[in-house]
Amino acid sequence: MIIGGGFGGLDAARALAGAPVRVTLFDRHNYHLFQPLLYQVATASLSPGDIASPIRWVLRHQQNVQVLLADARAIDPSARRVTLDPGPGISYDYLILATGAAHSYFGHPEWAARAPGLKTLDDALEIRRRVLLAFEAAERERDPQAQRRLLTFVIVGGGPTGVELAGALAEIARQSLRQDFRSIRPESARIILLEGGPHVLATFPATLQRAARASLARLGVEVRTGSVVTNVDEQGVQFGGEHISAQTVLWAAGVAASPLARSLGVPLDRAGRVLAEPTLRVPGHAEIFVVGDVCALRQDDRPLPGVAQVAKQEGTHAARNVARAIRGEPVLPFRYRDFGNMATIGRGSAVADFGRITVSGFFAWLVWIFIHIFWLIGFRSRFVVLGEWAWAYVTFQRRVRLITGDRLRPDSP
Amino acid sequence: MIIGGGFGGLDAARALAGAPVRVTLFDRHNYHLFQPLLYQVATASLSPGDIASPIRWVLRHQQNVQVLLADARAIDPSARRVTLDPGPGISYDYLILATGAAHSYFGHPEWAARAPGLKTLDDALEIRRRVLLAFEAAERERDPQAQRRLLTFVIVGGGPTGVELAGALAEIARQSLRQDFRSIRPESARIILLEGGPHVLATFPATLQRAARASLARLGVEVRTGSVVTNVDEQGVQFGGEHISAQTVLWAAGVAASPLARSLGVPLDRAGRVLAEPTLRVPGHAEIFVVGDVCALRQDDRPLPGVAQVAKQEGTHAARNVARAIRGEPVLPFRYRDFGNMATIGRGSAVADFGRITVSGFFAWLVWIFIHIFWLIGFRSRFVVLGEWAWAYVTFQRRVRLITGDRLRPDSP
Repeated sequence: MIIGGGFGGLDAARALAGAPVRVTLFDRHNYHLFQPLLYQVATASLSPGDIASPIRWVLRHQQNVQVLLADARAIDPSARRVTLDPGPGISYDYLILATGAAHSYFGHPEWAARAPGLKTLDDALEIRRRVLLAFEAAERERDPQAQRRLLTFVIVGGGPTGVELAGALAEIARQSLRQDFRSIRPESARIILLEGGPHVLATFPATLQRAARASLARLGVEVRTGSVVTNVDEQGVQFGGEHISAQTVLWAAGVAASPLARSLGVPLDRAGRVLAEPTLRVPGHAEIFVVGDVCALRQDDRPLPGVAQVAKQEGTHAARNVARAIRGEPVLPFRYRDFGNMATIGRGSAVADFGRITVSGFFAWLVWIFIHIFWLIGFRSRFVVLGEWAWAYVTFQRRVRLITGDRLRPDSP
Repeated sequence: MIIGGGFGGLDAARALAGAPVRVTLFDRHNYHLFQPLLYQVATASLSPGDIASPIRWVLRHQQNVQVLLADARAIDPSARRVTLDPGPGISYDYLILATGAAHSYFGHPEWAARAPGLKTLDDALEIRRRVLLAFEAAERERDPQAQRRLLTFVIVGGGPTGVELAGALAEIARQSLRQDFRSIRPESARIILLEGGPHVLATFPATLQRAARASLARLGVEVRTGSVVTNVDEQGVQFGGEHISAQTVLWAAGVAASPLARSLGVPLDRAGRVLAEPTLRVPGHAEIFVVGDVCALRQDDRPLPGVAQVAKQEGTHAARNVARAIRGEPVLPFRYRDFGNMATIGRGSAVADFGRITVSGFFAWLVWIFIHIFWLIGFRSRFVVLGEWAWAYVTFQRRVRLITGDRLRPDSP
């Protein structure tokens, strides 16, 4: 049994192709999501269909896999059973847990409604709706102070997601919407990126951090490092001694592993991840493996980062260990091969860290495009997304500026 | 003031380009929707972004137009004011009402939750979700009778929308999903089209009605004419003495004009449309014009049909009459030029009625594609949609099979 059809779960299922096992993969969405491009759905560049594929379609040729749409609620490791919703409990011989992580609101779950995170397609559509509704409300608004608040966008968290969101929002305001309004000047919007630590892109080398910050400044993003958010209220955001009045607050900080990990009854780290053995096994449960963001593992005295590449490699490795265990062979420790880290900052700019080589600017952006297109599932998506990007680059337009859902006010629940 | 950014309202705004007027266009969606292709979003062939464009983007170069996102709640013709939500009331000198129509549930509004109609993007996404969730639930289900009910799809209404939905659903079941499931055979799904009258496509010539029926039969759609629905309950649909047990019921019958028309206090027809003067003026209100599905007009002793072409021509005509009235010239009566009617029935088949010429089959389908591509707003959408269709034709696949929204059961509210 595999729970989760993200990067880890999907690669685990694929690695079991041809193995003498029956695989059941559960996910609470019917699609596999290419999360690195999710911010482009949130910022109206790509459609959901461009970056998501039905899991059962991806695995349609693999006859030993059945895909089921269901939410796993709890694991009973002693009975080797998983409780599902909807559906009855299901037993397993081996379990690969790949349920990922959500954002952590630093012990303030009540901020979530005011400051949505970006983990699912529905999150992305909600962010797109809020951003577009804020511009619409500003166009209707007569009071300059209220207009100002509607045109202020705060992004909390200066990791890759926060940086990419801020860059894309700046481009929407400065370029895509320029001709469309009569009462407001969209290019006057304030976009503020708050980071608690001393630098944006904390996991990147210092040269790339500086390059990213310079790119953000060129786009007119106000970057405030050392700014720990202490409150998110109806009016805006409080950090340090300062309060910013903003209609739209987006959350791209903190990580909290899937709550399913707790039901295993084994030690977790502070983010709720399972402290796995080097083989990806759960201590005390030889038949359970954890991969991706729900797994905490250290390598060379540093924690493995929560990125797609780690999840994919762990998924494949866990599946191979399951196959080894079934054949009666010893399971092997996992070793992560780091191919590099990247982030884009708006149009024509990116940073890329390949260990000994680091690049920034336009060339890094081309590399970023090439790698992300290559990674997308299916020739079809690659072709469409490449076309969208080429079009957007030439026209400065964002095609998918649609407000779906029934609400007309940016502040209605 | 123009209320409504559909075919009628948008063409009215465009016809006022260069006129010495200030135009404000209100819509409760931020997008203009190409409704003739909406069924392709509902059946996972196209993304919302392929058939919808932000109204303010479409009109961005027309400096005398301001577009505002708001819902018009009531018109006070004596005060020449419109009540908006959100926002204060706004006064007008001339008003073009183009708010369209919704489905009519024959006096049973309680059926709407069980049998959604297809008028907005959100409707289309809801239908897509229900159809895909039904297949997912069937794959989980063990009881054959319950599985049968989950794989039964009833479409009420044999007009173009109902016929196109039925054809597309049949293709999903017979082709697109064929390899994706392990416990069910999607091609065994029952698709039933219920029509109260004696023929499907009632407004088309008899030869084309027969051709459409034959095409539906080839796709395995059960067409039941003379079947007036008397109840929609939790289990399924009642018509005549028969009850069909079906999880998914889709509504494509009846027309009820926008309730805004009632606030004018003038005579309406049974569907709630304003009985307009031949000039499209509202009787007794020289400064109000009605166009599209909210306007009832007869020509050559027959009512004008509720199609996009009528709305577009009326929109343009109403705008020109407003310009004439401002210049002190007499307003002119409207005359509809009928360029023909079309409907598709699945892959590679359509019917087209051009008055003296009628065609059906593959050639009609090519004509249908050509005309609909030509009509779409923006070179961009034309290019993308043509690409999608070519891809789908070659691969039999539907790209956008995504279930968004949080529900995992097809029957949860």
